[in-house]
Amino acid sequence: MSKRAYNFCAGPAALPEAVLLRAQSELLDWHGKGLSVMEMSHRSDEFVSIAEQAEQDLRDLLDIPSNYKVLFLQGGASQQFAQVALNLLPESGKADYIETGIWSKKAIEEASRFGNVNVAASAKPYDYFAIPGQNEWKLSKDAAYVHYVSNETIGGLEFDWIPEAGDVPLVTDMSSNILSRAVDVSRFGMIYAGAQKNIGPSGIVVNIIREDLLGRARSICPTMLDYKVAADNGSMYNTPPTLAWYLSGLVFQWLKEQGGVEAIGKVNDLKQRTLYDFIDASGLYSNPVNQSNRSWMNVPFRLADDRLDKPFLVGAEARGLLNLKGHRSVGGMRASIYNAVGLDAVNALVAYMAEFEKEHG
Amino acid sequence: MSKRAYNFCAGPAALPEAVLLRAQSELLDWHGKGLSVMEMSHRSDEFVSIAEQAEQDLRDLLDIPSNYKVLFLQGGASQQFAQVALNLLPESGKADYIETGIWSKKAIEEASRFGNVNVAASAKPYDYFAIPGQNEWKLSKDAAYVHYVSNETIGGLEFDWIPEAGDVPLVTDMSSNILSRAVDVSRFGMIYAGAQKNIGPSGIVVNIIREDLLGRARSICPTMLDYKVAADNGSMYNTPPTLAWYLSGLVFQWLKEQGGVEAIGKVNDLKQRTLYDFIDASGLYSNPVNQSNRSWMNVPFRLADDRLDKPFLVGAEARGLLNLKGHRSVGGMRASIYNAVGLDAVNALVAYMAEFEKEHG
Repeated sequence: MSKRAYNFCAGPAALPEAVLLRAQSELLDWHGKGLSVMEMSHRSDEFVSIAEQAEQDLRDLLDIPSNYKVLFLQGGASQQFAQVALNLLPESGKADYIETGIWSKKAIEEASRFGNVNVAASAKPYDYFAIPGQNEWKLSKDAAYVHYVSNETIGGLEFDWIPEAGDVPLVTDMSSNILSRAVDVSRFGMIYAGAQKNIGPSGIVVNIIREDLLGRARSICPTMLDYKVAADNGSMYNTPPTLAWYLSGLVFQWLKEQGGVEAIGKVNDLKQRTLYDFIDASGLYSNPVNQSNRSWMNVPFRLADDRLDKPFLVGAEARGLLNLKGHRSVGGMRASIYNAVGLDAVNALVAYMAEFEKEHG
Repeated sequence: MSKRAYNFCAGPAALPEAVLLRAQSELLDWHGKGLSVMEMSHRSDEFVSIAEQAEQDLRDLLDIPSNYKVLFLQGGASQQFAQVALNLLPESGKADYIETGIWSKKAIEEASRFGNVNVAASAKPYDYFAIPGQNEWKLSKDAAYVHYVSNETIGGLEFDWIPEAGDVPLVTDMSSNILSRAVDVSRFGMIYAGAQKNIGPSGIVVNIIREDLLGRARSICPTMLDYKVAADNGSMYNTPPTLAWYLSGLVFQWLKEQGGVEAIGKVNDLKQRTLYDFIDASGLYSNPVNQSNRSWMNVPFRLADDRLDKPFLVGAEARGLLNLKGHRSVGGMRASIYNAVGLDAVNALVAYMAEFEKEHG
């Protein structure tokens, strides 16, 4: 029996076992070269081939048009919150932001430090259980961009549609649902995603940016945060996080082997339906989010009685079902079921939840 | 026979084999927890213990006084070039910089974008083969800090002394010689170091900062680049690069097992003497740097005839002596002999160099 647990962590999250096995086998000696990937110059032929393959695989997976650059950066989505504004929000300009939860709020706070931010719509009137439809949005005519977070990991709120912003570039934090299903990249000005959910280990960020948005950085933007500098240097203006880049590339390869994002999207759909259907049919568990806005990746749920939280978690852990505790800001439970968390994990969770309900319901 | 090569890469550089073996054995299942370190929440008890142990081991190794914070950041030293200025250089203030090579030049260029920089001394008049003595420095009376790069990896130029800056905080980029020998941390306002030479994989930076220097960030400093925010949040304002942090911790443990920085300093001294003595005694190889400024970590050298460069490199590679080609900006050869490159590697290199000289000298 495998010693590997079912890991429902919100992030850094589970990675495919096949990827870890491959990384393990290559850790001291990559392809017979006598050294680890992390001991290679980023400018070596070997690492450049790894980096280029990772980019190409991501391009294949998301069908990224040729007028988009793919960047591999550092600092996480939180750093992007500043970086987006420093690169795309002119000093005297304005940007529209959609507020749907904790991460979009953080993006708004940080961008507001550098310019004029208009919160064009908010899920607050819906207690963050529903995303306001675009007919309720108050977009500016002259916005430099429209920013939204496509999946809120804490609230478990996900856009199942792409906003329409006309000629205004759409910028989205896709950290927690990138590669979870097919998406039309050409609808976006920029997509960014911290790796630690569906891509790889923490410490690397993927940016997919339309070329015409490069070269707009403000004078106060640090060189390392300038998207054009990164693009012009193949994300190697300085030494990139090579190990994280390599591992991300292995995940992309794994995803291709699974049939790509269309195929994994079907699995993810089945996983989320299995879990939400069980929750909705149960008498003990509940999820408050509006059906069409429920996240496929992060499923928060509550037990009818908070006093059952602890025994629920203890029993789960005893069965190798880890990291089900909800975010400290909202309490309850949360099952994050990213790409690397298989249907078997969801089935094991549902079986345990049913068993627990029978005993305590 | 081990398949591992002797790796003289300037960075990302060789890591101790013992560290890689340990990481390999734990890669899918850390301490029987059923998951990889990179699949754990950074806020889990498990990862927090890893992070704290790493910090404590670094504190032990460098005997870091309690009024210094240790930060684990992202972005590399190149990002620090901006971050230092955004945190420590007031808008109307001034900072002194010492220019000893390519990295200090980059630091000067970036800081100059954010404020008034005085180049108080330069190695240029010495063709970057010697570091001007402090009697030649023109320090400002009112500088916010004095910045220097303690080891220039490309030129192979290293300070074997710590400048005297009085009450002005001394800030140093110690990326390529941190932990290579004992150093008195209390002499510095801040030390920063990209990991990929003597600490761990690329993608993480260690900052050792005196507490009174926190809280001075400029209004234009992105939150993620504010040292105080990092310090107040235990370097977890956002998700840190957990895998790189863990691997750095393993390197710190390994270094303690070697006897710490005093002990490794003796080994490093022997390594550098072995190599420089051989070069100086040879008729084929030469190093132009002033004896007392020669780097212990990066040993650039030239062959008397450039046409021998290629056969030298081909022969080296055939013997498993890798990455000896000099930086593209200066040509020639370079052997980087960081902590993880043992005396055995230096001896193997010298043996090959002697053999090559006999054939081609």
